Amino acid sequence: MRVVCLAGGVGGAKLADGLQQTLAPGELTVIANTGDDLERHSLAIWPDYDTVLYTLAGIAEPGQGWGIAGETWQVMGQLARLGEETWFRLGDKDIATHLYRTARLRDGARPTEIALDMSRALGVPSRVLPMADQPVRTRVRTDDGWLDFQDYFVRLRQAPDVREVRFAGIESASLTPECRDAIRSAETIVIAPSNPIVSIGPILAVPGLLAEILAARSRGVPAVGVSGIVGGKALRGPADRMMSALGEESSALGVARRYAAQQLLDVFLIDHQDDDLEEPIKALGPDVVVTDTIMPNASSRARLAGEMLDAAAVSSARRGPAPDPESGLRP
Amino acid sequence: MRVVCLAGGVGGAKLADGLQQTLAPGELTVIANTGDDLERHSLAIWPDYDTVLYTLAGIAEPGQGWGIAGETWQVMGQLARLGEETWFRLGDKDIATHLYRTARLRDGARPTEIALDMSRALGVPSRVLPMADQPVRTRVRTDDGWLDFQDYFVRLRQAPDVREVRFAGIESASLTPECRDAIRSAETIVIAPSNPIVSIGPILAVPGLLAEILAARSRGVPAVGVSGIVGGKALRGPADRMMSALGEESSALGVARRYAAQQLLDVFLIDHQDDDLEEPIKALGPDVVVTDTIMPNASSRARLAGEMLDAAAVSSARRGPAPDPESGLRP
Repeated sequence: MRVVCLAGGVGGAKLADGLQQTLAPGELTVIANTGDDLERHSLAIWPDYDTVLYTLAGIAEPGQGWGIAGETWQVMGQLARLGEETWFRLGDKDIATHLYRTARLRDGARPTEIALDMSRALGVPSRVLPMADQPVRTRVRTDDGWLDFQDYFVRLRQAPDVREVRFAGIESASLTPECRDAIRSAETIVIAPSNPIVSIGPILAVPGLLAEILAARSRGVPAVGVSGIVGGKALRGPADRMMSALGEESSALGVARRYAAQQLLDVFLIDHQDDDLEEPIKALGPDVVVTDTIMPNASSRARLAGEMLDAAAVSSARRGPAPDPESGLRP
Repeated sequence: MRVVCLAGGVGGAKLADGLQQTLAPGELTVIANTGDDLERHSLAIWPDYDTVLYTLAGIAEPGQGWGIAGETWQVMGQLARLGEETWFRLGDKDIATHLYRTARLRDGARPTEIALDMSRALGVPSRVLPMADQPVRTRVRTDDGWLDFQDYFVRLRQAPDVREVRFAGIESASLTPECRDAIRSAETIVIAPSNPIVSIGPILAVPGLLAEILAARSRGVPAVGVSGIVGGKALRGPADRMMSALGEESSALGVARRYAAQQLLDVFLIDHQDDDLEEPIKALGPDVVVTDTIMPNASSRARLAGEMLDAAAVSSARRGPAPDPESGLRP
């Protein structure tokens, strides 16, 4: 069962881990958000990507949601001594990732090529692909003006309200051959419980990527999502407040509305806490499965991943292929 | 007493430390070799410079002659895991230096400006200046062809014989305002016991630098050197074998001959082991002081530095100003 999973950081990494546990080696391809990438201390840093990579390599720090387990902080300590701002914390092993990547980029390697080499070196049995080889930078407008994403996310701890979101460079980005081939050969498309605006949003905005997914759906490949907002609150991060501030509903319904508007969903999983949203979401088009969507440990990741794949299979069998996106809107 | 010291790595750092102990804060300016700089893992690394900087900051690893005391090796370990070659070893704190510098360079800062900021941040009471702001790269020709300096020096552990030395980029380098001002206001010029070919050689090859030193000498500023080759053997590194392979005498006399040929020396210090060379060196022009030139500890560094400054003063009083370099060769 070949699966493509669209993923941001922590929630995406957890679900990807569940999928990797569930599938045979090589069956999972994750397309990771790179809109939150940044350059700091001369290093090319891919925060969401690395969270997925480290999680699938089994070396992720289990508690904090970023970085490598058992990290030390010698480099940061010395950078602070040299007068550098260290609000974007980087562990010593983590820095090796960024050094490796930065050196390869400067040598002219494609991000995707670097990513695949790193996955192999770390023994990851899945493919973790950057969403594009061109730089895309998510920026958010607050009442104090436009901010780089990590400036908002890490330095300001997501305190300001977000009035507008832009993916700078997205119009120059293009679907990579690797992402295209993965979607074309996928048997199920999975959308992780990541922030729909700033994690899944940039991936779907890569020119050509959504069209490939819709083309897959028209061939009968089911697409299944799960809400990262439970009981009106984001499991992690600012998705709930961001949706409210942008005039959307901060709930599983709001998330489903976003994806349904892009004709992305055959079936959507929501938490028991949100069972009152089952009918309103069904009214948008997708099937709905109500289950336990929170993933506190490895086995719950595998269980949720399995339930998503099962739900996709059931939905696919029941519905048949989606209409060709070229032939007009879905009824 | 304002002193300018030309220095390479370990020997230069030790003598600079002795000078810093001896002089009042702010009186010492070190002009450090940057011909051995390299770029690895995307980082701008200045090995000789950093050895001097760390030594004068009191944070140098005391035994091995490079790096910071009490280093950890997390970054290197992870780089190895990613498949990178790690023959050029970089400790975690040391990497912070290179990250800071690389980021500043990419932001367009001048190397000298970065260097002065780093010295200040580390509380160094002296000025440690790179010999130039333009990249200069020492390359050596061996029987297997041309090699980058650190390839020869670290990776191949100086095993091949050196047939020829070049300072790539030297013709595009220029004397920095900071080096020029330091030499113009110096009251003594000191040449450290560093490798005369690949440590002091590149510094003297920076267009305009030797001329400034000779102009200072013609104003009566004494120049004093000390041999880094004792008993025919380099105290550290390959200077002895390098000089032999290049057809020069691998001894304090060979070193003195190099500097005397550039009219650089008023007085030269040699070790007791080499007292048979006193007369041959005197015949080249400079005064000679025979003393204990080996610096096994902090107090011996200060003692040798003090003896050099004293010898320079004595020589200066005895000789008066050197002839103007414009007016022809020295008698």
